[in-house]
Amino acid sequence: MKIKIKQNILMEHLNYVIRGISNKNIRPILNCIKFELKEEGLYLISSDNDISIRTFIKSELIENIENLGEIVISGRYIYDIVRKLPNEIINIESVMDSKVYITTDTSSFHLNCNNIDEFPIIDFLDSSEPIIIKNNIFKTSINQTAFASSTQESRPVLTGINFNINGDVLELTATDSYRLAKKKIKLENKINQNINIIVPTKNLLELIRMMDDENEVTINIFNNKIIFKFDSIILMSRLINGNYPDTSKLIPEEFEIELLVNLDNFYNSIDRASLLTNEADKNTINFESNNNVVKISSNIPEIGNVEEKIEVKNIKNKDIKIAFSSKYMMDAIKSLDCEEVKLLFNGDIKPIILKNPETDNLIQLILPIRTY
Amino acid sequence: MKIKIKQNILMEHLNYVIRGISNKNIRPILNCIKFELKEEGLYLISSDNDISIRTFIKSELIENIENLGEIVISGRYIYDIVRKLPNEIINIESVMDSKVYITTDTSSFHLNCNNIDEFPIIDFLDSSEPIIIKNNIFKTSINQTAFASSTQESRPVLTGINFNINGDVLELTATDSYRLAKKKIKLENKINQNINIIVPTKNLLELIRMMDDENEVTINIFNNKIIFKFDSIILMSRLINGNYPDTSKLIPEEFEIELLVNLDNFYNSIDRASLLTNEADKNTINFESNNNVVKISSNIPEIGNVEEKIEVKNIKNKDIKIAFSSKYMMDAIKSLDCEEVKLLFNGDIKPIILKNPETDNLIQLILPIRTY
Repeated sequence: MKIKIKQNILMEHLNYVIRGISNKNIRPILNCIKFELKEEGLYLISSDNDISIRTFIKSELIENIENLGEIVISGRYIYDIVRKLPNEIINIESVMDSKVYITTDTSSFHLNCNNIDEFPIIDFLDSSEPIIIKNNIFKTSINQTAFASSTQESRPVLTGINFNINGDVLELTATDSYRLAKKKIKLENKINQNINIIVPTKNLLELIRMMDDENEVTINIFNNKIIFKFDSIILMSRLINGNYPDTSKLIPEEFEIELLVNLDNFYNSIDRASLLTNEADKNTINFESNNNVVKISSNIPEIGNVEEKIEVKNIKNKDIKIAFSSKYMMDAIKSLDCEEVKLLFNGDIKPIILKNPETDNLIQLILPIRTY
Repeated sequence: MKIKIKQNILMEHLNYVIRGISNKNIRPILNCIKFELKEEGLYLISSDNDISIRTFIKSELIENIENLGEIVISGRYIYDIVRKLPNEIINIESVMDSKVYITTDTSSFHLNCNNIDEFPIIDFLDSSEPIIIKNNIFKTSINQTAFASSTQESRPVLTGINFNINGDVLELTATDSYRLAKKKIKLENKINQNINIIVPTKNLLELIRMMDDENEVTINIFNNKIIFKFDSIILMSRLINGNYPDTSKLIPEEFEIELLVNLDNFYNSIDRASLLTNEADKNTINFESNNNVVKISSNIPEIGNVEEKIEVKNIKNKDIKIAFSSKYMMDAIKSLDCEEVKLLFNGDIKPIILKNPETDNLIQLILPIRTY
């Protein structure tokens, strides 16, 4: 392999592919990046078994391709070396004894390569029914649901987001069993098979960091993996085995109490009230509606107490006194992109629902905390 | 105590005084901020014994002063509460049973106060011979020396910066015994007494974060403390007991080898070469001059090696081969504010000196590492 390439072009793609190398250092080969130089251009590949990334630099963007070939090289070292080189042309040349030379006019690095045969072989296939979504819609939807998934490995299925496709609707669901986020996305195309899979939340968060807002992503779903293609990048994630809990009956259709509240005021009041809560007590705060006024209060006995007042529009009139985690409530409010929030209740031991008053696409559910 | 004050004004001053509260939680009273409301305005005071800060909001900046008085209140809580309140008028009122009410139109916090008598009494005196330095000169000088002081508590005197005043020259010295930084500042006024003290580096770094670039700082030095006054802020630091090592003879007057090198090129080459060093080996890199070319090289046997070439102007002609810590060299280069760096050597086991070719005000010294 012998190539001349501009530093900024190689760096842009190393920035993507570095996200696929393992931080756990279990197998040294998984800390590596594979360079595959072909007629059509340079492929960079990384994989830690959980996630695999391939990015492609087409030959038009490369200064000179002299010899085709492959090398496998420590990801962290090649990344830092290219990052610290000036924006000039970099020569990369593999030589005998599995060494690679990385040189510019003034710098000369000689690195030991790893064995190509040890690097995992990854199949970046297309499925029969790919799904296409605009990047910005996909990114927003993941951000609106991911926070509600669990970080505890004790129930692996809850550490992912459930992708459920029925016809032309993709429903994303995340829950840690104390709260739940559900987002519906209308697809451009209708899918014939029913799809019900669980994708690791941390891989989805890694994925959306790599996406711009402009283009669209093509999603290919298989039995044991999901493949996202966008720009010149392919990201493959394993799926989580197991059955996702059926959450379709958790969200009531009817509510006894409906309030409308200004989103910013509501968020800021809870944020201030949360100062006098503590994690050991699940950051519990009290919510008490009385006609058009809501009182939000909390206390830490040795420190003091706080009471916040906000005005609400009372749509279905009945007062309520309920308690919940301020942290969960703030996460849910933040996910809503609207001026006013609709708050829905069915009594003090039933789930609290938050949504944009103008659409049912996104539902946030929080379980109340019993304080008596 | 009863006061009405704008949120942004109180917040600005809490931002200063919060830096004086203890993070160590040894004595709860040291996590507190004292509010002293007097005719002339509001004083905020914090102290963790190591550092004490007082800031002053004059009465013209306060909406309303109703009752004078004092309270002592948890620093972290009052800071977060004021930070999260909107930029409106805040009412602060102490009430019976050592409680304080912090209220706005919609928020109402009741906090327990601490016992005023437990709060340390701090004397922010003026000395007979205060020193005056422009803020920007003082900040730059601390930044140019602080990094060279030690972080190891085994030799406490080296964890500070030595302030040595002789006539109208203040000399700042910092060393961790492997490298040394020395900065001379010409004072506006001549000081009659000789001053030779050690000020904790971490307190000086805290201090300069609070200073703007415009004004000047007045420094009052006592036997066991140093007091800095600037704007409406006073910061007092303890001094470190002990004798600072005499470093005056460490810097040679004559050099066998003198080179001139472009600062950015030199820094970037060492930065890249440092990629193939490791901390266990003191980040050792090799430096080899040959007429007008310097080769910088390093290696980690299992990973590979690197060689960087840069052009130098050889002022006093003799070649040298020497090794040093890339980290120490980069710290020293960063402290110099010039286009070209002068490098001075007296052989491969003698200290390396770096300085701006146009001034002797700042000297950086690094001990070489023997590699054979």
